[in-house]
This record gives sequence, C-alpha cells and structure tokens, in this order.
Amino acid sequence: MPKVIDHDWRRAELVDATWRVIAEEGVEAATVRRIAEVANCTTGRVTHYFANKGEVLRAALRQVHGATVERMLAHLSGDDPVEVLRSVVLEALPLDDTRRTEWQVRLAFFGLLAADPALGAEQERRYDEWREFLDGRVRRAAPALGDDRRGASVDVLVAAVDGLGAQAALDPRRFPRERLQGAVDRLIEATLA
Amino acid sequence: MPKVIDHDWRRAELVDATWRVIAEEGVEAATVRRIAEVANCTTGRVTHYFANKGEVLRAALRQVHGATVERMLAHLSGDDPVEVLRSVVLEALPLDDTRRTEWQVRLAFFGLLAADPALGAEQERRYDEWREFLDGRVRRAAPALGDDRRGASVDVLVAAVDGLGAQAALDPRRFPRERLQGAVDRLIEATLA
Repeated sequence: MPKVIDHDWRRAELVDATWRVIAEEGVEAATVRRIAEVANCTTGRVTHYFANKGEVLRAALRQVHGATVERMLAHLSGDDPVEVLRSVVLEALPLDDTRRTEWQVRLAFFGLLAADPALGAEQERRYDEWREFLDGRVRRAAPALGDDRRGASVDVLVAAVDGLGAQAALDPRRFPRERLQGAVDRLIEATLA
Repeated sequence: MPKVIDHDWRRAELVDATWRVIAEEGVEAATVRRIAEVANCTTGRVTHYFANKGEVLRAALRQVHGATVERMLAHLSGDDPVEVLRSVVLEALPLDDTRRTEWQVRLAFFGLLAADPALGAEQERRYDEWREFLDGRVRRAAPALGDDRRGASVDVLVAAVDGLGAQAALDPRRFPRERLQGAVDRLIEATLA
C-alpha cells in the first residue's frame, strides 16, 4: 500500500474512533488517551495525527461539515426552489442520532472557539461558504427579494439554524421532529417574504 | 457585619473577579487559581464558594442572566409593542463590550453543557422563562397571530437570537451594530407576519 493511502487510512480510523467516543461517551471523554484505547493503538500514534484535543475536534468537525454538505447537495436536484431550501435547512438540524452527535461536536467546538479565537479562521471560511450557499438558494426561491432584504434573511437563516440545532441537540426531548419542522416552515416562509 | 451579608459580599467579589478574568483574558483563563489571584485571596476561599470551574461559570452565567433581564425590563414601559419587542431582542445581543463578554460566558457554558447534560436543568428553566417572556411580547405585538404560528415564531426568535449572539461574539468585526440591527428588523418583521 502506498504511504499516502496508509496515512489517510490511519487518520480516518482515528477520526472514526473519535466519533464513536463522542457518540457513546460524550465530547468531554474524547481525550487522546481514550481515542487511542478505542482505536486500539498507542497514544503516540494519536498524537502523531492530532497534537491535542482541539485538533481532534477540528478533524471531527471537518468530517461533520463534509457529511452535512454531501447530504445537502443531494437535495439540489429538486424542482421547487422553496422545497429545496426547506430540505437543505432540515439537513442542518439534529433530526436523528448521527446529526445529534454532529451537533454535540459543533457545540464543543463553539466552547473552544470562545476560549481560543485562533481556531476561528477555519470556522469563518465555513460560515462564508454556508452563507453563499444559502444566498443562492434564497435567490432562487424568492427572486423578487432585494439585496438588502436577502442579506438580512440569510443572516436570520444561518442564526436560526445554529440556535435551533444547539437547543435540539442539548434538549432533544423538547425538540421532537415536528417542532423543528414547524419552526423551519415558519422560518422559511418568513425569510422569503 | 452580619454573617449572611458577609457571605453574599464575598461571593459577589469572586464573581466580579471572575468577570474581570473572562473579559481580559478569556474564559479559558478563568481557573480557580487565577480567580484567587485577581480577587487577592486564597484558592481555598474560591473553592469554598465554587467547587470547580463549572460552578464558576454557572455563577457568572447567573449574573449575565440577571443583568440581561434587568436591561430588558427597562424597555417594557414603551408604547409600541413592536418597538418593545425589538428593544428586548437587541438587549440580548452583543452590541457592546459588556454584552460581548456575557456572550463569551454563554458560549463557554454551551460547550460545558454538551459535555455534561446535568448542568442543563438550570439552563432549561432559563429558556422556559425567556420563551414565556417572548411569547407575551409577540402576543402584544401581533394579537391576530394564531397559537401555532406564534409558538413557531417564538422558537425562531429564541433560536435566531442565540445564533446571532454567538456569531457576533465570536466574530465581532463582521457583525457590527448595523448588521445585527438589520437582521433583527428582518427577524421581527418576519416573525410577526
């Protein structure tokens, strides 16, 4: 096996172990030592790929982001642009166990960002892409909306998705699917008007 | 000085020291040791009031919450219920240094909640009160709105405030006052329609 594949493979194994730890034991448990135990390797190998817990979460977050984007892209072929926007927004929310784990990673990362703004550059790029993506979808769904109103709509959409996702991840019993869907319907209707 | 006042006084001094540490050095710096240094006391006195960092943040968060509620109540005497709602929502956002520090405390607490759901009971009560408060304001500002729509509107309002606040606290340069005000105007208009 060529070195580069070996390298990617080992990294993926560790990210996978990280996910399992987070899903089963919570974010706080995702220490270098615990990841090594679950991946059945030495802590040295983990620290070879991730220098510290911030990097572990960063890698997990990148995987969250990639998986979310892939799911969203699958909706773009739809005919009704309002329906496409609704599906995209729902994909971002913690409607199943996988996405709840994804949100726990995001929340933990928010906590780290508050403590260490240097981590923020990557997060900023991600928000830029998300805004640009939503801007294109809102443009299609409400072509008559002026630039200023569309810009404010995108700000509200991004913010409401973050807020709904965080609350539903922290308190899933109170935010069953129907409640999230109701809020998203209201949000879409409101931000396109 | 009676014992009970002495006790409250010392506690307030420590919360004040905590705030100064968070505002000047970031949340991560708010360790028991650092708070003791800034408060010019022993770590033993700090741990007498706060057993660990979670409790320190909890006390800081309570103070955040109290201060925010007080500022909001000051707007309730306004005549125009839409304007009252707008002022209340703007009070929740990080439009100045004090409120940016408040949001950093909130974000750090979100990170802790993801790791330790047991911390969540108090947070849940706080959200319940916030929702109830907003529900009353929305009812006054848009009396014709049906119960279901108003409920979804309150969900969107709470979520959007959390999302806008978090982003503006993490990335203040990109979220100047005008941008936050524009988003809030759009949000209020949209959720009352």
